[in-house]
Amino acid sequence: MTFEITHKDVLTKARAGTLQTDHGTIQTPIFMPVGTAGTVKAVHQRELKEDIKAQIILGNTYHLYLRPGLDVLEKAGGLHKFNGWDKPLLTDSGGYQVYSLAGTGRKITEEGVKFKSHIDGSSHFFTPENIMDIQRKIGADIIMAFDECTPYPCDFSYARQSMELTHRWLKRCCERFDNTLPHYGYQQTLFPIVQGSTYKDLRKQSAETIASMGREGNAIGGLSVGEPAEDMYEMTELVCDILPVDKPRYLMGVGTPENILESIALGIDMFDCVLPTRNARHGILYTTEGVVNIRNEKWKADLSPIDESLGGYVSSFYSKAYLRHLLKAEEILGAQIASIHNLTFYLWLVGQAREQILAGSFNSWKNAILKKITQRL
Amino acid sequence: MTFEITHKDVLTKARAGTLQTDHGTIQTPIFMPVGTAGTVKAVHQRELKEDIKAQIILGNTYHLYLRPGLDVLEKAGGLHKFNGWDKPLLTDSGGYQVYSLAGTGRKITEEGVKFKSHIDGSSHFFTPENIMDIQRKIGADIIMAFDECTPYPCDFSYARQSMELTHRWLKRCCERFDNTLPHYGYQQTLFPIVQGSTYKDLRKQSAETIASMGREGNAIGGLSVGEPAEDMYEMTELVCDILPVDKPRYLMGVGTPENILESIALGIDMFDCVLPTRNARHGILYTTEGVVNIRNEKWKADLSPIDESLGGYVSSFYSKAYLRHLLKAEEILGAQIASIHNLTFYLWLVGQAREQILAGSFNSWKNAILKKITQRL
Repeated sequence: MTFEITHKDVLTKARAGTLQTDHGTIQTPIFMPVGTAGTVKAVHQRELKEDIKAQIILGNTYHLYLRPGLDVLEKAGGLHKFNGWDKPLLTDSGGYQVYSLAGTGRKITEEGVKFKSHIDGSSHFFTPENIMDIQRKIGADIIMAFDECTPYPCDFSYARQSMELTHRWLKRCCERFDNTLPHYGYQQTLFPIVQGSTYKDLRKQSAETIASMGREGNAIGGLSVGEPAEDMYEMTELVCDILPVDKPRYLMGVGTPENILESIALGIDMFDCVLPTRNARHGILYTTEGVVNIRNEKWKADLSPIDESLGGYVSSFYSKAYLRHLLKAEEILGAQIASIHNLTFYLWLVGQAREQILAGSFNSWKNAILKKITQRL
Repeated sequence: MTFEITHKDVLTKARAGTLQTDHGTIQTPIFMPVGTAGTVKAVHQRELKEDIKAQIILGNTYHLYLRPGLDVLEKAGGLHKFNGWDKPLLTDSGGYQVYSLAGTGRKITEEGVKFKSHIDGSSHFFTPENIMDIQRKIGADIIMAFDECTPYPCDFSYARQSMELTHRWLKRCCERFDNTLPHYGYQQTLFPIVQGSTYKDLRKQSAETIASMGREGNAIGGLSVGEPAEDMYEMTELVCDILPVDKPRYLMGVGTPENILESIALGIDMFDCVLPTRNARHGILYTTEGVVNIRNEKWKADLSPIDESLGGYVSSFYSKAYLRHLLKAEEILGAQIASIHNLTFYLWLVGQAREQILAGSFNSWKNAILKKITQRL
């Protein structure tokens, strides 16, 4: 994997770059749609490419490991072959889901995490080593280190101990990763994750540790978990200033359109979040004119396109009134249309950000567009 | 609306024809996907056209009347404009749903049917007259008469009284229809419905009554409601032999691929059924090789395409194992893929039937293909 920064903004720390993987090129900054269980919910693979113009998507190790399982994925030749997504793919480490979904009976030790499947209650054990092996077998282009993602709020003592565990696990991840080969022939790369909750000295220490590992890209975890946006930005800025400038920086699980633009300004290159798809299913639409709760009565007879200036089939073809009707009637097509629309918006947003960085006008554009797109319509 | 029969089979009563409406041409025999609430569940409008190659779809008057409501549909300029489906459209009369969904507090009188909405419990009254007005406003190209659809089994006395009521209502439907104008400029046409349960003399009497109305097309209702297939075929044949030969014949709510081919052989031109979409959501797939319960363990690691010889994006691109995974994980994309696949199969099947009628080989083809496609795989 190679990463080249082609443009740097002058007024902010935003940058535009090109990330090259064996499954294709990613133009950064980029948003990565979340494909939890091997599918971006309610979206066909060709829609991801042709309508949304996604360049890289996520898979969740926890979900894929439990279902369909590694035997099926290996037989297919990896997740790319299994679901037909032939562009770059990133998998998380499963850590977050182990904490948030498989809550009951979960036990964290130095060795790893014992947990029960949320599907059938069966017992499983994740370790830094087997998580590397599992992600190799899933076949992601970018693999994430196994970490503990601390909740918010989190007391200093726990945050420090958790961070230190994450660092020890990281060494084990790197060792295992470096001693194993790509599982399907194409290159795979490992991103470590900065933790440290909202404590500046922990974040600084963690960023320095992660930077010292010299991996091909780095991630920031444990943010957007409930802390105030100011804290998120403060931690992100602090960490970005320590992480190597010439490597891609991935801010995990972030966020709103505002979070994304502000974090691009701080030097972040990659984002993922379930917000556009989850909110879509609940009728919250991001548009070039502002945020729309399409289930509101006011849209009942609004026959204008969902967002004509965004372009694309779904946003131009279907009306607000029709989408409202579908979501009110709990029709599957409602989730489909809203999901494609919101993801198209997110990819449009980062694409615009990139163009503005290239044109040297990122900061003024950011401030102007945020006023518009964060309005409640 | 014009209908022209271009080919007649020699060994069976199958025919191939062309039905011309202001929204385009329909090649018969044809299957019409059901778009209950203004959407064929889980399918985009462009997929209906480009993948499934649907020529006409259905809307349900009961559902559309309750939600989004006539005010919204009229403001849009009719259902075609509201949902973006610009090809021919047929609406049922709402009768079936009034009986099956709005069960509690329903009251049938000579005047019409009083019922409560299954959505909010509000009271409504359908009459032959207002059902004509409602369908005019929904804007269907083909409008169905308001009838009572008898359940199975149904005693002779009730079946006769119900049929007679349906006939009296039909006269009121025709009168109202003939004294009103197309609501949006394009032509609309009314199909009456033969009833009479599984009683030959009632079916004969009803078919004669319906034939005597001289409408542009005729329908057969009250079948595929639980009676043995032999009874369905017997009634269908009896009725087809009475209905005018030069008008399209629509067998409502039918059915399985076998029901469809056998009924084409009896002289039916049009079909609709929720089976392909409802079964799709439950993992029952119709393929050119046989019927597949894709949720079965045996497909877990079957990476072959769903049905490569059927052609089309969805059936060729996605594997059986991937679709199984999606349906097991209750992912929306599973319903999407399976629905497109099954509808593509149904449209393929009637398209093949038409080609075989044109080629003079319908009967032998029917017997051979039924052996194959009705196998349980």
